[in-house]
Amino acid sequence: MASIRLERQRGHAAEPANDPRAGAEGEGDSPGMYPLQASRSYPREQWYVAAYRNELPAGKPLGREIFGEPVVLFRSDSGEAAALSGLCVHRFMPLAGGQVTGGKLVCPYHGYAYGADGQCVHIPTGGKPSPHAKLRHYPVIEDGPFIWIWPGTAEKAANTPLPDLRDIGLSGDGEGWRVDTAERLDLDARPALLVDNLFDLSHIAFIHLQSLPGAEGLALIPPVFDRTDVRFRVGRTLPGFVAEPDTAIARTMPLIAGRPVFVSLHTDFYSPAMINSSGPWAYELVDGNQPGAPIAKINFVHIVTPKNETATHYFNVVSRDFDLDDEDISAQLVAQTDRVRKEDAVWIAQIEKYADRLDVRKEISTKADEGALKVRRVLQALIEAEEA
Amino acid sequence: MASIRLERQRGHAAEPANDPRAGAEGEGDSPGMYPLQASRSYPREQWYVAAYRNELPAGKPLGREIFGEPVVLFRSDSGEAAALSGLCVHRFMPLAGGQVTGGKLVCPYHGYAYGADGQCVHIPTGGKPSPHAKLRHYPVIEDGPFIWIWPGTAEKAANTPLPDLRDIGLSGDGEGWRVDTAERLDLDARPALLVDNLFDLSHIAFIHLQSLPGAEGLALIPPVFDRTDVRFRVGRTLPGFVAEPDTAIARTMPLIAGRPVFVSLHTDFYSPAMINSSGPWAYELVDGNQPGAPIAKINFVHIVTPKNETATHYFNVVSRDFDLDDEDISAQLVAQTDRVRKEDAVWIAQIEKYADRLDVRKEISTKADEGALKVRRVLQALIEAEEA
Amino acid sequence: MASIRLERQRGHAAEPANDPRAGAEGEGDSPGMYPLQASRSYPREQWYVAAYRNELPAGKPLGREIFGEPVVLFRSDSGEAAALSGLCVHRFMPLAGGQVTGGKLVCPYHGYAYGADGQCVHIPTGGKPSPHAKLRHYPVIEDGPFIWIWPGTAEKAANTPLPDLRDIGLSGDGEGWRVDTAERLDLDARPALLVDNLFDLSHIAFIHLQSLPGAEGLALIPPVFDRTDVRFRVGRTLPGFVAEPDTAIARTMPLIAGRPVFVSLHTDFYSPAMINSSGPWAYELVDGNQPGAPIAKINFVHIVTPKNETATHYFNVVSRDFDLDDEDISAQLVAQTDRVRKEDAVWIAQIEKYADRLDVRKEISTKADEGALKVRRVLQALIEAEEA
Ligand code: FES
Ligand code: FES
Ligand code: FES
Repeated sequence: MASIRLERQRGHAAEPANDPRAGAEGEGDSPGMYPLQASRSYPREQWYVAAYRNELPAGKPLGREIFGEPVVLFRSDSGEAAALSGLCVHRFMPLAGGQVTGGKLVCPYHGYAYGADGQCVHIPTGGKPSPHAKLRHYPVIEDGPFIWIWPGTAEKAANTPLPDLRDIGLSGDGEGWRVDTAERLDLDARPALLVDNLFDLSHIAFIHLQSLPGAEGLALIPPVFDRTDVRFRVGRTLPGFVAEPDTAIARTMPLIAGRPVFVSLHTDFYSPAMINSSGPWAYELVDGNQPGAPIAKINFVHIVTPKNETATHYFNVVSRDFDLDDEDISAQLVAQTDRVRKEDAVWIAQIEKYADRLDVRKEISTKADEGALKVRRVLQALIEAEEA
Repeated sequence: MASIRLERQRGHAAEPANDPRAGAEGEGDSPGMYPLQASRSYPREQWYVAAYRNELPAGKPLGREIFGEPVVLFRSDSGEAAALSGLCVHRFMPLAGGQVTGGKLVCPYHGYAYGADGQCVHIPTGGKPSPHAKLRHYPVIEDGPFIWIWPGTAEKAANTPLPDLRDIGLSGDGEGWRVDTAERLDLDARPALLVDNLFDLSHIAFIHLQSLPGAEGLALIPPVFDRTDVRFRVGRTLPGFVAEPDTAIARTMPLIAGRPVFVSLHTDFYSPAMINSSGPWAYELVDGNQPGAPIAKINFVHIVTPKNETATHYFNVVSRDFDLDDEDISAQLVAQTDRVRKEDAVWIAQIEKYADRLDVRKEISTKADEGALKVRRVLQALIEAEEA
Repeated sequence: MASIRLERQRGHAAEPANDPRAGAEGEGDSPGMYPLQASRSYPREQWYVAAYRNELPAGKPLGREIFGEPVVLFRSDSGEAAALSGLCVHRFMPLAGGQVTGGKLVCPYHGYAYGADGQCVHIPTGGKPSPHAKLRHYPVIEDGPFIWIWPGTAEKAANTPLPDLRDIGLSGDGEGWRVDTAERLDLDARPALLVDNLFDLSHIAFIHLQSLPGAEGLALIPPVFDRTDVRFRVGRTLPGFVAEPDTAIARTMPLIAGRPVFVSLHTDFYSPAMINSSGPWAYELVDGNQPGAPIAKINFVHIVTPKNETATHYFNVVSRDFDLDDEDISAQLVAQTDRVRKEDAVWIAQIEKYADRLDVRKEISTKADEGALKVRRVLQALIEAEEA
């Protein structure tokens, strides 16, 4: 995260929108791919989640479009996941429809077989495959519940560790955490529109009024911005928060029900791929308004993988550090996150319909947008750095 | 209508079509957007019907695409209709999915609220909205059964009255008229193809052979062209017409059933938005072939609103000046016009599929097309004047 | 077929594919429309099959898109098939929705009527149609089970005979042959991808493993290339082949069941429109490994008609020269070819999805692809000749 720049937002709020066509079409030279002022929709030199680990059993390939390219995943004999370019070197048949036989990925058309490194190792009609008969091999790491992929330049992958997700139980063995996998949504919108949404609490009072009762006032609390080596936070705290009985929060976090605690509600940007909305983190209340020992943490972790310039794979997991075996809590949390995310997906896709003609310079922003705008700048800086 | 020019049609009929690719693709420099010889599909500096008034109850916004732009309509506290550009100034969410609360239009995403003039008057997260936080406001007039909108330059709206539709009971209070609203069709074809159809009686014998029995010979009567301040007419008269019992005409216009009358069948171009097909107008028969006192008038009024370059909102009302309370006649007339219009819509959409490659200069026209060709010239002149 | 050039394949097999994006996107100047190195997808100055003869009864027109153009077929009073450009000269209504009345094709919109030569002969609103009121007329020949059409320049048609299909019973009266018509498939792929498939036996072991049991080893037999005046052959022979009882081959070719015969399995390119896969041809076995007198022949004839740049009408007939009245054999053969062709269609369409970004220079080919690559060169040469 050393590359995240937190530049001051430059006088964005007062941009005029009184043009006769405001809200419809931009004019003059385009400032980039809305909502970013950048030439591309999202940074590419990053680790992204290609799939949940449990989406890839042994013996069957999985096809996935990432940054507009067909990718095929499969497990070799050792059980390790491999990710290769998805079109056969012979006649470009998509390999996702193939088989995994003897730990090799076999093309459905004429049976060229590939190893985990992408090298073709067998051609049924005979002959030794040329060293050129090789699919692009994507760097892949399995960690936590995820199969991570590096869609950018392979050399850069070697120098770039995965985002450090120990805070939220998603790095390494996740000891002490329960992790539940929510639905992978196919979002008909570019990734940065989803990020806008995730760093914006003010829509809760509208889009999620029914799904997140009681949360509608959160956006009115001024956020604190905080940066560490691993994440950039837009945070809000509620000292003395009481989870009333029979509310969703009391049911999913029984440890805090009915007594005043210190609560942190924050959205953490770990990387373009990984954004966590705490759900919440609760601490003992000390001195009436200070956080003491941690009691319980819930994380709704939003995982963003660009499908192409205008669509996004939207993964999601819920992690928590208490009542690890309580299936009922897991079910409630997954149901809640999926309900909320589907509400968002419908609305975000409405903006995507017009996104090609939108001009970020015509937006009207307020103080409440500060967090989201800071994150946009982070994304823009990453894209600019890739182009330099 | 001072701007309607009725130039002589310039030798259109003999244009050759024996090119090996005739009927398929044009060649050389394109003459414009078929079927017009103009750079755009339809005039923009005009009053158009955005909606039937009864489509816009209080308390709920209505979204409509007009000239390719999202427009949102709603009623303010006073009950007046307002039309605004359809994307929120904040993050461009389409406002059609929002609410009307306290007479303000509220964005579904973060709740920015707008007044009837498009000015943002409330931002839930606080702060006074900037004067720049303003949606484009379209001139709107409610008159007769319509909400009229001006999609062009606002200044020109002020100098342009609505089409004068008193003739057909659609201006002002409509005293003495019964007006019934037919279905709004979503026509998959550019507006000028619909106009072509409306000014062409010769298709009745084919497309509407079942729906308009007895009308198939009308196109053989030579039309008379007639222009007044309010409309351009392609007219035909039938002196001594007798509505035979048990025909559609006798059922919907009982006053003329079974006796010779003078009938006027005409198609009137009031504006690019409004075309009336009389259905018919009946007069007493005088001197065996002259019109006397009016007996009864039916109007099938075709309302054309460009949705975008290749699609059209096709509204329709039926007005009549007799038997105002006869619900049965109303039902028959609405059923007839909707049946006929849907037949047309299917076929016109067939032409639209190929319209991008059609060349008006390759058309073969005859005397029977004279009326439609004159109206095309009117439309072309209006577009040219806008571009001058 | 004098125009088929059989140039040596130029070092195609060793083309590198280890570019980091191999299998995804080509780079630099495009080599043409994959899988050909040519500016267009298929040769146009050729006879193609527009329809099976039995698709065109008297009294009803048939619409078909060929090379991206709407074509309408109908039978005139004499019963002969005519093919005309598919959009009316008047207002370009597609004529496929019209009627055939009195042996004339009548437009559904305003009833212009056309003779078999494309000349408009009647306009219902009166007047003598201009000689310019003429649709493009395509050269057409009915022969065997087919209505052939020439989509190219009409003069060239006159100098070009139909492909000579006497070998397979599809020219002239087909005396001594039984011909069964299989389904016309709408293939979502450009024609050259289908040709690639037809000249490639190695996919049988994969795509058709269930449908063509026992055939999976065929691709391992080295092919012999052979050219005559009428066709270019990729052939394989099986001296001493025995059709085991209860196999598909024994059931559909009873004359050879259970005894050693000489079998020829070949794919013959007669023209871009016509490719035959023998199914098989069987001869008496002489001297243990030589062909003697012919016993029986089955042909699965693949008929390729470009619909547009990325889609193909895929017709198919099965012909045989034995047991002509055995309906059961006919039913089995048609069922087999349709099952196999539908399997192919699904997979070929998978490649089409990516075809716009594929670069033939990045393919990895082997000896087994030699036949298909030779045929590609034939197609390329035909296209080049058209452009010269
Ligand atoms: S396309 Fe994969 S083996 Fe031929
Ligand atoms: S997009 Fe409308 S209030 Fe934010
Ligand atoms: S379009 Fe065919 S007759 Fe008018």
